[in-house]
Amino acid sequence: MPDTVFILNGPNLNLLGTREPDVYGARTLKDIETDCRAAATRLGLSVDFRQSNHEGTLVDWIQEAGRTAKGLVINPGAYTHTSVALHDAIKGARIPTVEVHLSNIFAREAFRHHSYVSPVALGVICGLGPTGYVLALEALAGPAAS
Amino acid sequence: MPDTVFILNGPNLNLLGTREPDVYGARTLKDIETDCRAAATRLGLSVDFRQSNHEGTLVDWIQEAGRTAKGLVINPGAYTHTSVALHDAIKGARIPTVEVHLSNIFAREAFRHHSYVSPVALGVICGLGPTGYVLALEALAGPAAS
Amino acid sequence: MPDTVFILNGPNLNLLGTREPDVYGARTLKDIETDCRAAATRLGLSVDFRQSNHEGTLVDWIQEAGRTAKGLVINPGAYTHTSVALHDAIKGARIPTVEVHLSNIFAREAFRHHSYVSPVALGVICGLGPTGYVLALEALAGPAAS
Amino acid sequence: MPDTVFILNGPNLNLLGTREPDVYGARTLKDIETDCRAAATRLGLSVDFRQSNHEGTLVDWIQEAGRTAKGLVINPGAYTHTSVALHDAIKGARIPTVEVHLSNIFAREAFRHHSYVSPVALGVICGLGPTGYVLALEALAGPAAS
Amino acid sequence: MPDTVFILNGPNLNLLGTREPDVYGARTLKDIETDCRAAATRLGLSVDFRQSNHEGTLVDWIQEAGRTAKGLVINPGAYTHTSVALHDAIKGARIPTVEVHLSNIFAREAFRHHSYVSPVALGVICGLGPTGYVLALEALAGPAAS
Amino acid sequence: MPDTVFILNGPNLNLLGTREPDVYGARTLKDIETDCRAAATRLGLSVDFRQSNHEGTLVDWIQEAGRTAKGLVINPGAYTHTSVALHDAIKGARIPTVEVHLSNIFAREAFRHHSYVSPVALGVICGLGPTGYVLALEALAGPAAS
Amino acid sequence: MPDTVFILNGPNLNLLGTREPDVYGARTLKDIETDCRAAATRLGLSVDFRQSNHEGTLVDWIQEAGRTAKGLVINPGAYTHTSVALHDAIKGARIPTVEVHLSNIFAREAFRHHSYVSPVALGVICGLGPTGYVLALEALAGPAAS
Amino acid sequence: MPDTVFILNGPNLNLLGTREPDVYGARTLKDIETDCRAAATRLGLSVDFRQSNHEGTLVDWIQEAGRTAKGLVINPGAYTHTSVALHDAIKGARIPTVEVHLSNIFAREAFRHHSYVSPVALGVICGLGPTGYVLALEALAGPAAS
Amino acid sequence: MPDTVFILNGPNLNLLGTREPDVYGARTLKDIETDCRAAATRLGLSVDFRQSNHEGTLVDWIQEAGRTAKGLVINPGAYTHTSVALHDAIKGARIPTVEVHLSNIFAREAFRHHSYVSPVALGVICGLGPTGYVLALEALAGPAAS
Amino acid sequence: MPDTVFILNGPNLNLLGTREPDVYGARTLKDIETDCRAAATRLGLSVDFRQSNHEGTLVDWIQEAGRTAKGLVINPGAYTHTSVALHDAIKGARIPTVEVHLSNIFAREAFRHHSYVSPVALGVICGLGPTGYVLALEALAGPAAS
Amino acid sequence: MPDTVFILNGPNLNLLGTREPDVYGARTLKDIETDCRAAATRLGLSVDFRQSNHEGTLVDWIQEAGRTAKGLVINPGAYTHTSVALHDAIKGARIPTVEVHLSNIFAREAFRHHSYVSPVALGVICGLGPTGYVLALEALAGPAAS
Amino acid sequence: MPDTVFILNGPNLNLLGTREPDVYGARTLKDIETDCRAAATRLGLSVDFRQSNHEGTLVDWIQEAGRTAKGLVINPGAYTHTSVALHDAIKGARIPTVEVHLSNIFAREAFRHHSYVSPVALGVICGLGPTGYVLALEALAGPAAS
Repeated sequence: MPDTVFILNGPNLNLLGTREPDVYGARTLKDIETDCRAAATRLGLSVDFRQSNHEGTLVDWIQEAGRTAKGLVINPGAYTHTSVALHDAIKGARIPTVEVHLSNIFAREAFRHHSYVSPVALGVICGLGPTGYVLALEALAGPAAS
Repeated sequence: MPDTVFILNGPNLNLLGTREPDVYGARTLKDIETDCRAAATRLGLSVDFRQSNHEGTLVDWIQEAGRTAKGLVINPGAYTHTSVALHDAIKGARIPTVEVHLSNIFAREAFRHHSYVSPVALGVICGLGPTGYVLALEALAGPAAS
Repeated sequence: MPDTVFILNGPNLNLLGTREPDVYGARTLKDIETDCRAAATRLGLSVDFRQSNHEGTLVDWIQEAGRTAKGLVINPGAYTHTSVALHDAIKGARIPTVEVHLSNIFAREAFRHHSYVSPVALGVICGLGPTGYVLALEALAGPAAS
Repeated sequence: MPDTVFILNGPNLNLLGTREPDVYGARTLKDIETDCRAAATRLGLSVDFRQSNHEGTLVDWIQEAGRTAKGLVINPGAYTHTSVALHDAIKGARIPTVEVHLSNIFAREAFRHHSYVSPVALGVICGLGPTGYVLALEALAGPAAS
Repeated sequence: MPDTVFILNGPNLNLLGTREPDVYGARTLKDIETDCRAAATRLGLSVDFRQSNHEGTLVDWIQEAGRTAKGLVINPGAYTHTSVALHDAIKGARIPTVEVHLSNIFAREAFRHHSYVSPVALGVICGLGPTGYVLALEALAGPAAS
Repeated sequence: MPDTVFILNGPNLNLLGTREPDVYGARTLKDIETDCRAAATRLGLSVDFRQSNHEGTLVDWIQEAGRTAKGLVINPGAYTHTSVALHDAIKGARIPTVEVHLSNIFAREAFRHHSYVSPVALGVICGLGPTGYVLALEALAGPAAS
Repeated sequence: MPDTVFILNGPNLNLLGTREPDVYGARTLKDIETDCRAAATRLGLSVDFRQSNHEGTLVDWIQEAGRTAKGLVINPGAYTHTSVALHDAIKGARIPTVEVHLSNIFAREAFRHHSYVSPVALGVICGLGPTGYVLALEALAGPAAS
Repeated sequence: MPDTVFILNGPNLNLLGTREPDVYGARTLKDIETDCRAAATRLGLSVDFRQSNHEGTLVDWIQEAGRTAKGLVINPGAYTHTSVALHDAIKGARIPTVEVHLSNIFAREAFRHHSYVSPVALGVICGLGPTGYVLALEALAGPAAS
Repeated sequence: MPDTVFILNGPNLNLLGTREPDVYGARTLKDIETDCRAAATRLGLSVDFRQSNHEGTLVDWIQEAGRTAKGLVINPGAYTHTSVALHDAIKGARIPTVEVHLSNIFAREAFRHHSYVSPVALGVICGLGPTGYVLALEALAGPAAS
Repeated sequence: MPDTVFILNGPNLNLLGTREPDVYGARTLKDIETDCRAAATRLGLSVDFRQSNHEGTLVDWIQEAGRTAKGLVINPGAYTHTSVALHDAIKGARIPTVEVHLSNIFAREAFRHHSYVSPVALGVICGLGPTGYVLALEALAGPAAS
Repeated sequence: MPDTVFILNGPNLNLLGTREPDVYGARTLKDIETDCRAAATRLGLSVDFRQSNHEGTLVDWIQEAGRTAKGLVINPGAYTHTSVALHDAIKGARIPTVEVHLSNIFAREAFRHHSYVSPVALGVICGLGPTGYVLALEALAGPAAS
Repeated sequence: MPDTVFILNGPNLNLLGTREPDVYGARTLKDIETDCRAAATRLGLSVDFRQSNHEGTLVDWIQEAGRTAKGLVINPGAYTHTSVALHDAIKGARIPTVEVHLSNIFAREAFRHHSYVSPVALGVICGLGPTGYVLALEALAGPAAS
């Protein structure tokens, strides 16, 4: 059975494709999931793709990933900038984690320039749109995460 | 003739593999160049791979890229954090640019958390080691950069 | 059928009338709901009045408002000062939103002076007690929100 | 004789309708005065409506309001952000005061996010355009200000 | 029937004993609950011991404690540093509250040095490991909390 | 012979019971010493209880504790917030140290929120009045300090 | 003819004795003027005692003092904290200037802790009520100002 | 009839030539007016040259310039650093505005380094003494302001 | 027997008249003591005049003043800017206290602009040289301190 | 032989007319040189006009100007905001220097508001486009620079 | 008789060789004294070598040095970072002073990066261990201090 | 063959003896080189003494030193305060490095108080003029650097 990678999405990402398409693009979260599944198959991985608007649920899922998954791709959305709980959960999960953002958070409002997740992630990919998710999977499948 | 992507490396990256291998890994810049050339061939691209310790030289090269290249991958090294000149050069070059860092700059000293390059880049990839360069090329070859 | 306005209340507002009456007054959230329903009837509106202590639930409801309501009145309580998720949800909902606070947050602790909600609201009403909710409905019914 | 409410307007508000209509709207200060007089009649109040570009004159008028009026509606314009003198005058006037801003000051430049007036006002209404003045009168006529 | 003290634990504390044992020690949350129950019996108290990763659930429980308990021991975990909602809930609960941290938060990252809970707690105990919970119960049973 | 714990008190604590009793309570430092001696006897410890208004004297005593005592309880009073010398002395003493404050320093002026002692202490107890000293002794007698 | 000292009072000081008597005391500005005239007679000085709510008028008067007076006593009121114009006027007047505040500005809100006037004054007297004016006259009559 | 340029001077500039000649030079404001009139004649312009110590008067005049003048040269003196009202007035006047300072404000006290006027001016000239006024007129007469 | 006022002088004030006479003047501390004794006699007071370089000794003396004196004049010297211990001692002494500085601390280095003593003093006199001590005694003898 | 003025241009200015024409205008650096040469001839000056992307080269040239030129006009481009080396070089060159910026740097990003060059320049001209260079030459030819 | 140099050591330096040897090295203060005496003999100087944990004592000794010594070498230990009193004492002593630190304070905690002593010292030597003391003596014996 | 120490000098140091002699002294860089060569001979070392105004060149040379030299003395001049590239180069060179400044940078402008080089240097010597270079060589020849 292939290794599983959790792909977790934070608040408001369920609206992708409808919310501010000039910032986040026209593709839906379902489209991204489809891309990820295709890439995972190619890379010999299986993915568990989820979204929640609830910080606590994301913490629950990160803990679950820590117990069962090989790696974690997370787009924490707005919680990126405010959640020490996600920071702690990822640190405790002890699995390679790639933080992904669709938009370039450094080209936006100042409060989006700081991430509580980045210091505990293996790496960060931002500004590359849905492609970022696929690149994150490649990174987790490759030498950087071993 | 394939489109060219410039891959520019900033100060001290010529020491890769010898300088602080616990932070930057054991692979040399030559190794990374080899990886990039292989990936470029696969992606139908050609690469122009350079390194300089001189901020002004990097500005010269970014201007050159703006005139002749399809895209830019840049690891600005220490100039990431101090160079408005690179910011302006990239903004003026008007080609898709991906900023790459081998290490996770957000897990290091506070003065490495701010980048003058990020706000004018298409996106940022950090912490994924040499793989980051290859992912950047993939991003430039794909829909994110078009 | 009259247009619906969502009136959403954040954490601890269910305790109104019992918690710190010197700050928040003696009227309960139920009393405020009654006032709002009366005002809505007068203004030809219908209201959907809710309260939750959960940030994620508020995000869910704001998204729902974005799909079904004409406008939004929100007293985000403590999440006013900490929630980028609410900011993003309101921005994505694309309906006129009035932020309401019972107390004058600018006359209280410094950490209550900043709101993540205000920059994406149409306007803000604070310090006017339960009357603020009714005024917000009037604003949404009037020319300011059209 | 009906109770009087002073409605004071700060610098540059005499240009309303001509200055930056995208920010402040197309209605003139005279239009707002007309709205306020209509609302006051409805609410059983009389209004004394004035405008000045001079901080000292506004201080004079607030003192006068403190001696003769039931309440104060003030749009301090630019002095909102710089005037401790207005803060002191309002605090000394000891009458219910509602601060009004036509635009949403929290969605504008950072230096407009702080108000010296808010901590001594009963409440604040901003971003609701000319309607904000009428809502302020309603608030002063209602239970919030008693 | 003995007085009840609520003992509430925030995000990721369910992982105690497995997550970063060098920071948080090897004892599990179940071990701490056992210690607390033993101490409570000795002190003539009963304890209601809970854990949640959800900020909103913690707010719900604090409100419940305000209605039914004699005192509150809370280890807010990561929400210590980010939650105004917990601050407000504890302030509204009006029962003696002791904030407990297993590790010495002042010897860790700067973002852990500030607590939104401390200003509304009776007192704070940190850095003393599981013993801190028992000491908190003793404090609530003694003269400091009366 | 029982192990000795030094209990050191900083400036103005000799005035306890007379200075600002609403903040520090009505019990004198002598009362606290009596409580500590009783607790120490119960815990099989001996205590050396001292007070000084002189920062240098406190440094001298901490050094002495480092040479002869098993542990240290210190209420550094005002020097908490200003003394790097105490920080260094405690770090150099290499014995378990519990910092105690009678009042909740986090509920007071901002300049009392930072402690130079906390980062080098084993733990901190504050806001629990004289009980805090006894709890500190218990902590030093127990597993947290071993 | 005796030397003249200007005694200038800033905004809202005309309300003394009525505005916030707990902060500013019960004596009126007229009372203070009477005290100053008595003290001046005793010291062989004449005083020119004025008050204005207008920053520009205070600047005009300081310039006048610079041309005709031996010294200046100024209670700049709220302009203390915001007026670079007063700073420049006093610096340009080149006469000994004593800044006086009735209340202890350092025991009040943080925005009252900074004075633009102090760096160009000979000295500052604050917190001593109306007596401060008389002491300022004594200082100007004595060796400190020669 | 030639186009008119308003040349407005802020507080204390009426003292030029007498106040701090080492900073501001020995020429009087009258001398500068004479220079400006000569330059204006040469450039086919007419000038309206005024000075006031009153912020409100400067606002009045800027509004007047907005209605009747082709351009504005303003030396806002001390109000440069404190006046949002001037900022708003200039923004509303919608005519090309050059900010002039006699001295190099960036070589002086830190509080003179920030200007509220600069962001809404066409350009800034400082440190070049009375010549700066003439250069500003040239700029307004030339292509930069068209 | 006349009431006693303590006059306490902090570090380096024993060097007055020799240390930096351009800043502190040519009069010695002995000269100031003589002035104070003369003034005290005139005011019906007795003075206890002391100097120490030791923060702890100053704390001891302030406590003594709190037990035996009618008032306190203190020039805390360098400890003004760093001593929370003096702050606490003065607050605890509960006698009227006037803080005196020979030089104008607001016209000197930034680190001298903040005083830990001012918020707990009755008032502050600075920049008036030795005269400041005499004025402080007058203030303590007069209505401001009763 | 006429006096020489160096006109030095920093990084990316060689791209003028092509890079961000909305910010920097459509004229090329060659056009500006032509303007400067014409103006210099009129003013009886000769100009040495250069551009470099290298901070060190600019330092070399400023040193050369210090040895051979009468004055310096410098548009330091991005090095304005980051180069202490330019600051030191200009300070050491001891010739009148005018800093020029084509755009109004105070109307752009915050990091462009601070200049290391301004404090050591005679004066600053910004926002006036290519005209600014000519005005700078006039200033150096006139009384301001003598 | 040879000139005397005072060598003063601040708090906790008496523990050298035992406290944190990884930071401060294994040599004792006695060893350093021996080195200094040997160097002094070589340089034709005599040394007065002392240590105290008391800030006030260090102030006393610096004053004594000012009266009797040719120069001062001071390792102020923790008081480096907190003592304005040492700053003032050294400034008043008017003898060449070299500040020495055994460790590289700039490679340690942020609060050790600022020294109140450095601005009034002739120079600073840090990070060079006991050798630093000897180098300081050489500096005082040489041309730098004359 | 003796061990080589590189002595590198940053921007503008080639002007020594001519630039601001009141700050940097009258000796030229050639004089300092002569001193260093004499000291090196005495210490059994050889020196490679260089100066550049180019940051990149300094990086090149530090890398060269890392490959061939026993130690490094560097006076980075203005790059001290702005160059992360020098920081990284020195860290990567892995040879003992002493940072030298002729003047006391802590007694100058605030922007000179921070050094990017200090945290990666063995130690720092500043304010001791040309002697500092010789002392640095002594330190590198002695036990501190081994």
